[in-house]
Amino acid sequence: MKQALRTTFNPAMEDIRMSPIVSISEEARARSKEFEKSGRSFVFFQRGEIDFPTPAFVIDAAKRGLDLGLTKYPKSGGEDFFKEAVAKRLRLDHEAEIAPAHVVATYGGQEGLELSFKLFKSGAGFSPTWSCALENFVPFAQLDFVEVPLNRDFSVDFDRVEDAVRGREFFYLNNPHNPTGKVFTEDELARIVDICTRHGVFVIADEAYEKIVYQGRHYSLARVPQENVITVFTLSKTFAMTGWRLGYTVTRNAKVAKLLRLGNYTQTAGVTTFLQYAAAEAMSNVDESRRAIATMVAEFQRRRDALYEGLKDLRGVAIDRPAGAFYMFPDFSEFIPRELAGTERNHYIYELLMENGIASVYGSCFGRHFGDNVRLSFSATPVPVIHEAVERFRRVFR
Amino acid sequence: MKQALRTTFNPAMEDIRMSPIVSISEEARARSKEFEKSGRSFVFFQRGEIDFPTPAFVIDAAKRGLDLGLTKYPKSGGEDFFKEAVAKRLRLDHEAEIAPAHVVATYGGQEGLELSFKLFKSGAGFSPTWSCALENFVPFAQLDFVEVPLNRDFSVDFDRVEDAVRGREFFYLNNPHNPTGKVFTEDELARIVDICTRHGVFVIADEAYEKIVYQGRHYSLARVPQENVITVFTLSKTFAMTGWRLGYTVTRNAKVAKLLRLGNYTQTAGVTTFLQYAAAEAMSNVDESRRAIATMVAEFQRRRDALYEGLKDLRGVAIDRPAGAFYMFPDFSEFIPRELAGTERNHYIYELLMENGIASVYGSCFGRHFGDNVRLSFSATPVPVIHEAVERFRRVFR
Repeated sequence: MKQALRTTFNPAMEDIRMSPIVSISEEARARSKEFEKSGRSFVFFQRGEIDFPTPAFVIDAAKRGLDLGLTKYPKSGGEDFFKEAVAKRLRLDHEAEIAPAHVVATYGGQEGLELSFKLFKSGAGFSPTWSCALENFVPFAQLDFVEVPLNRDFSVDFDRVEDAVRGREFFYLNNPHNPTGKVFTEDELARIVDICTRHGVFVIADEAYEKIVYQGRHYSLARVPQENVITVFTLSKTFAMTGWRLGYTVTRNAKVAKLLRLGNYTQTAGVTTFLQYAAAEAMSNVDESRRAIATMVAEFQRRRDALYEGLKDLRGVAIDRPAGAFYMFPDFSEFIPRELAGTERNHYIYELLMENGIASVYGSCFGRHFGDNVRLSFSATPVPVIHEAVERFRRVFR
Repeated sequence: MKQALRTTFNPAMEDIRMSPIVSISEEARARSKEFEKSGRSFVFFQRGEIDFPTPAFVIDAAKRGLDLGLTKYPKSGGEDFFKEAVAKRLRLDHEAEIAPAHVVATYGGQEGLELSFKLFKSGAGFSPTWSCALENFVPFAQLDFVEVPLNRDFSVDFDRVEDAVRGREFFYLNNPHNPTGKVFTEDELARIVDICTRHGVFVIADEAYEKIVYQGRHYSLARVPQENVITVFTLSKTFAMTGWRLGYTVTRNAKVAKLLRLGNYTQTAGVTTFLQYAAAEAMSNVDESRRAIATMVAEFQRRRDALYEGLKDLRGVAIDRPAGAFYMFPDFSEFIPRELAGTERNHYIYELLMENGIASVYGSCFGRHFGDNVRLSFSATPVPVIHEAVERFRRVFR
């Protein structure tokens, strides 16, 4: 007798959710074609992609790495030259006393976060939050995860943080923050770290947008000389290297660093050797990298200003000027008809914008608490397109 | 009151074992320095690294990929051009009717295997086996895994295979086989697949050494038109690209392909875009790739012949001429003193060779059943060095 083949698998794999942003992008592409037929353009505010090319000096470094024959198996946890470049740059930019042994090379911030989440069985983090944490890392690690809502103005309710971490293992802190663009203050960070430390809880700091800051300052948790802090970085946003998949995680906890190295080895056998060489060059060439970052951030800031100025006085739109990252997360509570609920409510603004040729991401992608908001990304949208988008917003919210 | 920080973590991370091959390599390097002082060379037979450079046409393709600006986020599961190149090459080389939708791009064979193992909760595979399966994939997936010993001559006991898979979820089949160099025959493969199919069990075929074959033929399981087969490939050995971390997994099972895509996305957000371009070129340029592979395999064959001819008549050494891969796995049962047991026995030949300036890997790294063997790798050892090694063997086993 032949046995049937199973069709369900390990829940850690089965429970991963496909990001709604993928289907949103598909819908946007389809709608965009309709728009084109009638001679109108479409505005893609749903993306996290960057429209800058990777700086030439980093591309040249990758080619040099290839010519140097850096094509053999990488060293577990990262090449020495890579870890040294990370440690040196963290000291320069964040006054962080990080040693190369505290650094683990990973495939983007993605792998650093995925492995860090997998260390634990329970955690907490702010809501709204980066959707991938909820859709991917939490189910993949089969984590019990609780969302701590930010206040409506994106300020922190520290009592709720303390209630959430009590008896849990880690707190996930994305700063600068996706999807709100909030940059946490030094005081907020100190209080969150203090709460976690008192409760014997780890902090997983996701600092993907560390260099995309328009006002105030980004304080990296890599500076905190404590063993309960894990800080995850990526070159994706800083150097317009989203497709390179290069990142690193730093922690002063030797046991955690060892487990992350073993996890990275198990998953991928290490990060592509000659790409680590390019990454080391990106970090070591301080002048070139600062120039490239400044150019990119100045352009993002022009886009932010154009979008913020265009939307801030619209009827029924409550909007905060983001201090970092390249997202805005306006609140449409005043505009959405009171009687709407559930998915109909969650998708109301998204649909309305889509009909007007603007793709956004509905707030319920980012957790349970901000369903009346939508995320607008200006990472790949030139200023003239933003002006056109603002015109469309004005016709709807007047 | 301050709570203490935890020092133990998720068993999936805690239970990963560091490969003994790492500490063996460290010991070999230390011993090598002693040898150098007395003017003698050291022979490194412990490595899986390849001493060939990546072919120039693949390096050039990576540079072209960079110049084309393929530096943006990869498409989930792999770029279309990558999956099409894989499907085309599998058809050409293995007459495998694989569609692009059946292909998932991964970081080397490593990620394909790691994710495939993680689909399940129980499995089986031959012993000896690739050490990484036992040290990394099994604990990472928290799998109940049973080893099915090959016979002493590396032939298959099909009854034992059937006993092992009954009630389990998958059978792991590495072919060509690490550490023995065995290339499974078409008949052996058909019987193993038949057993698994009858029991509703998946086959995870690891074909990392598909192109490193000296006699007979490698039959890829990618040819089998069944939904219970998952075949994992890598460019690492085929194109001397160990440090590039490029591979792919193919399966006709749409659900499995989807879960592998989601798993790859969760872990790494996809495979570096411009490296997929280089990989597609490596596979699509049939003439160049065949020339590069033929040159490399011819050199491996010279090394195999030199090593096999040198060792085959030694006292107390039972050796099988490997048909593929670049490993030999001689059996020293006749030589090792009968009274030795445990670690002392397992390390006896390894220590003896190390004292004579030859690094090998003791058989107990590869499972429970071949502790009297050691693995000798000739992937990075030129023929003159092999001749020197043979001289040393002759002095010991005479």
